[in-house]
Amino acid sequence: MPDKKHLRGMCDMSTPFRIGIAGLGTVGAGVVRIIRKNAELLEKRAGRPIEIVAVAAKDRKRDRGVDLSGFDWVEKAGDMATRKDIDAVIEVIGGSEGVAADLVRASLENGKHVVTANKALLAHHGYELAQLADEKGVCLMYEAAVAGGVPIIKALREGLAANEIKSIYGILNGTCNYILTTMRQTGRNFDDVLKEAQAAGYAEADPAFDIDGIDAAHKLCILAAIGFGVKPDFDALNIEGIRHINSTDIAYATEFGYRIKLLGIARRENGKILQVMEPCLVPIESPMGIIDDVYNAVYVEGDFVETPLLTGKGAGQGPTASSVVADIIDLARGHRLPAFGIPARDLKDAVWADPGETMNSYYLRLMVIDKAGVIADVSAILRDKNISIEGLVQRGRAPGQPVPVIITTHETRHADMMEACDLIEKLDCCVEKPRVMCIEEL
Amino acid sequence: MPDKKHLRGMCDMSTPFRIGIAGLGTVGAGVVRIIRKNAELLEKRAGRPIEIVAVAAKDRKRDRGVDLSGFDWVEKAGDMATRKDIDAVIEVIGGSEGVAADLVRASLENGKHVVTANKALLAHHGYELAQLADEKGVCLMYEAAVAGGVPIIKALREGLAANEIKSIYGILNGTCNYILTTMRQTGRNFDDVLKEAQAAGYAEADPAFDIDGIDAAHKLCILAAIGFGVKPDFDALNIEGIRHINSTDIAYATEFGYRIKLLGIARRENGKILQVMEPCLVPIESPMGIIDDVYNAVYVEGDFVETPLLTGKGAGQGPTASSVVADIIDLARGHRLPAFGIPARDLKDAVWADPGETMNSYYLRLMVIDKAGVIADVSAILRDKNISIEGLVQRGRAPGQPVPVIITTHETRHADMMEACDLIEKLDCCVEKPRVMCIEEL
Repeated sequence: MPDKKHLRGMCDMSTPFRIGIAGLGTVGAGVVRIIRKNAELLEKRAGRPIEIVAVAAKDRKRDRGVDLSGFDWVEKAGDMATRKDIDAVIEVIGGSEGVAADLVRASLENGKHVVTANKALLAHHGYELAQLADEKGVCLMYEAAVAGGVPIIKALREGLAANEIKSIYGILNGTCNYILTTMRQTGRNFDDVLKEAQAAGYAEADPAFDIDGIDAAHKLCILAAIGFGVKPDFDALNIEGIRHINSTDIAYATEFGYRIKLLGIARRENGKILQVMEPCLVPIESPMGIIDDVYNAVYVEGDFVETPLLTGKGAGQGPTASSVVADIIDLARGHRLPAFGIPARDLKDAVWADPGETMNSYYLRLMVIDKAGVIADVSAILRDKNISIEGLVQRGRAPGQPVPVIITTHETRHADMMEACDLIEKLDCCVEKPRVMCIEEL
Repeated sequence: MPDKKHLRGMCDMSTPFRIGIAGLGTVGAGVVRIIRKNAELLEKRAGRPIEIVAVAAKDRKRDRGVDLSGFDWVEKAGDMATRKDIDAVIEVIGGSEGVAADLVRASLENGKHVVTANKALLAHHGYELAQLADEKGVCLMYEAAVAGGVPIIKALREGLAANEIKSIYGILNGTCNYILTTMRQTGRNFDDVLKEAQAAGYAEADPAFDIDGIDAAHKLCILAAIGFGVKPDFDALNIEGIRHINSTDIAYATEFGYRIKLLGIARRENGKILQVMEPCLVPIESPMGIIDDVYNAVYVEGDFVETPLLTGKGAGQGPTASSVVADIIDLARGHRLPAFGIPARDLKDAVWADPGETMNSYYLRLMVIDKAGVIADVSAILRDKNISIEGLVQRGRAPGQPVPVIITTHETRHADMMEACDLIEKLDCCVEKPRVMCIEEL
């Protein structure tokens, strides 16, 4: 029989929900700001007050623009794990190893709930941590780890839980999307736009993590684990970044009716799961084609729901902290569920599809010497590999000089395409490694 | 101290979660289909089996394309409310009064959780039902009531719970959006496209509920209640449908860089809340401008999160049933929260803003006789009401015949605009009631 207790689980709803915040960078300071500003509202929504008991950060003196008075300042973040006056530890330090990882492990071990924004940690150690949380009867929450303020973890783990998920497509890195959008809008080249993005604070001083697709791949890995009920497996991911994309590619993509996006793809293919992060061409008017600038987007296909799309800014203090606090409210309210939506013991080792065996249409950019017989040589190689040309553009004349040749293909086995590229690269007329991107007709 | 019980609240997770489904139309049959097909998956996600105990529908003989064997067939839906072997009643009958309303009330009264897709019921009686649910310690869930398979209720009520919501914009009726999109793409007129939509099953035989904005307004009312913590108040809503929009409007909107959308708006304005449902012009490239066909979309502005957008198909068996089953999984898992995100006793009587006092840019379409002095007369009226013209188009010549004149304005007080329209209508040259639509620069 339902009764009042039933409504709130076994939480004692009359006492405050007490948290410790480890890390007071952009996100941590944002969490403090929200909890201070919206305290009354949060109490109504959580059913009890949310109380910041302790904070931890390296530099005690730095002005973070928020009032930190009244919080216990902990020297070693790790000490939060064992404090009796903390219900949940909020880990916003970052990094897949070291202090953050140790803190999360120790907190779960000591029966504390954990809220984190740490995608790297989840991508690398998510399975182990989910097991630990289940074992200790606590929750590991991480809405902020993917797509900032967009509640995609909740949508996938709960809102779409009725579905067997067929595919997930994501634009998951705002920096990359900003660079690609700006390249298109200005006609400028990659290096140039990257430098500007760094100056504007949209890209890190060391941009590798973003532009090589690692950050986005961490997020895809988490989405795939929830969607398909598999152990997150970052090492199984094929990752390609956006460094090699030039303004020629962007211009020709537009001419063919496409946008270039760094796209995360996780989908069922013949009983296996394909998981790749790579720049792709998507139709201009498609759900992913219209997502520009620093926006993230996730598009999901289930067996019953028809392709919902969630989009919004994927980073920044407000959106990211908003998601961290949503998790805190959930926990305070007594919301409990396993980290990846099903008990960790039920997460399967995925059978990953071999990307070489997938069928796709392709965009191919060659730089070849403008001379007789080049197209004949290239098209002979494609024919021998059973690759059917859908479109071909060679424009401009520069006898004896390198010119771009753009080819789009019909559906082709990926491995055949790669072999054809290797053969084309060996042609005398070919002066640069051929560049290949999938065309995803979303 | 957290323990195993803590993880699942006080639910007994070893027993099946037992439901009764009242109504076996499109949605009800879809719920049965999902629970049959994905039983194993749902059990993992819910932590326990979901068992359909009983079903109720008028016509027992109709083939619904799903296997109904093994379920107890209940003659009177209302009987489900008192059955001891049912944990939650799934109301998918529809209608704000009558059988559906009685069943929901009786079920809550008898301590059963309720899952419903019934937006009319919630818009009209949401506050009373939320009170009853709180009092009895049970939950009233309704993800399917707004935007079909798009988990917008969960996003707003939980995912964005850290925020004070500033505004909510929604395209909430797929039929209207389909009609407006088709009018634009084909240049055809409203009546024509409506007839086609009826033939194709996108519009009801009696389309008033959709095209007059009632259905969308029900949904907006629910979103506003959650977003602003107010009692749902359907009667306070200003509603205007899309019947009067013609192909001239659509063509000129495009020329000015806009799309026409039936837009639900709920936003804070000077300490009050504005709540309107009306066709508006939105920029072609804006988040709402790009939502076409039968797609729904909801766009939310919070004080911390930056404008997340959720979109997807707003109707259909699969998407709607997917949302109903998501609610069932939530309940089975022990997820508990008040109907509108905060206890019903905390829901406020909203102070609604007077639409007349709002400031907006406007689109104005006049049908006037093509003769000397007309523009002078019209612009004098606008000047006297302090309305500044931003753009004006009169095209084509038909001396002595009616021609359209399209005017866009700078920001203007709504009431002034309405008074100006009344005066313009009285001009001899004016042969038709002037048509006004807001321009929302999202």
